[in-house]
Amino acid sequence: MKLVLASSSPRRRELLPLLGLPFEVIEPEVEELTTGDPREVVAANAELKARAGAGLAGPGATVLGADTDVVLNGLVLGKPADEAEARARLRSLAGRDHEVHSGVYVVGPAGARSGTEATTVGFRRLGDDEIDAYVATGEWRGRAGGYAVQGYGSSLIASVDGDLSNVIGLPLPLVARLVGDLQTS
Amino acid sequence: MKLVLASSSPRRRELLPLLGLPFEVIEPEVEELTTGDPREVVAANAELKARAGAGLAGPGATVLGADTDVVLNGLVLGKPADEAEARARLRSLAGRDHEVHSGVYVVGPAGARSGTEATTVGFRRLGDDEIDAYVATGEWRGRAGGYAVQGYGSSLIASVDGDLSNVIGLPLPLVARLVGDLQTS
Repeated sequence: MKLVLASSSPRRRELLPLLGLPFEVIEPEVEELTTGDPREVVAANAELKARAGAGLAGPGATVLGADTDVVLNGLVLGKPADEAEARARLRSLAGRDHEVHSGVYVVGPAGARSGTEATTVGFRRLGDDEIDAYVATGEWRGRAGGYAVQGYGSSLIASVDGDLSNVIGLPLPLVARLVGDLQTS
Repeated sequence: MKLVLASSSPRRRELLPLLGLPFEVIEPEVEELTTGDPREVVAANAELKARAGAGLAGPGATVLGADTDVVLNGLVLGKPADEAEARARLRSLAGRDHEVHSGVYVVGPAGARSGTEATTVGFRRLGDDEIDAYVATGEWRGRAGGYAVQGYGSSLIASVDGDLSNVIGLPLPLVARLVGDLQTS
């Protein structure tokens, strides 16, 4: 199987080697959906990326697209634009639970498989000084939801219910299941 | 405050910058306790490291020692020696909860502060092929408990109850509280 990851996320590239399959990376440009039911949005965006990637990769390749959204009270939280937005984001996440949704879409010669994963993450209460300290690290830049659970952001977390790799940005157990299913079909 | 981290753990060095204080690292050699009540063991080892570090760092320095143990059914799980041990370790962690205990000891001109942190981590059920895939990554080498929660190990996790930075190897909220307490005393 010639596996191609259609993603510009460094986190996805770092996690995918666990599958034990060699893979290439391409970065298709797609117009992502931004509104709608979170689960449907990540599923649709994953398919958009996989199909755009398949167009670039050519026939014979099995292409993996993924999309992750951080959702608070039903609203999708994007990437903070600046420090003020990062600060406001952390303030809204502090002391409560939010959800991380990922969509995964795999398409190749053997057909297509898709799925979604959801993990509930609880932030502890945060003081203004703690929020300032986290914002000062710059770790929030380019991160959906404004934090990195595998970095300094780990110190903001009080609970995780569900797959943790999903919160980093690629739900590996789901990916392994979908890819494995295509390999044996 | 001249802060010195007395630790040879790369994870602790990576997390500590969140405090926003410049720090140095020294690696004192201490004879660590390995048996006893897990909470008392990590507390005693953190103090041993901090006091040995203080001896090396000299007067004026505030020295931070930390120790982390992974505990299953009351037994401390050390670092797996080889692949067979890593495989057995994952098999014993799969499908159940374990605890991660850290001790932190900070000593300097303003006195000493200490504390412990505990986090409960739940592994999902794992198939033999999944265990083999994780062992093949080599990520378990040198890790207490035999996994890295911030890496591929994130895909083994079904739940976390408590501070996640503690599971990486340094409970940052506790460290910030103890260091801050010494700064203002």
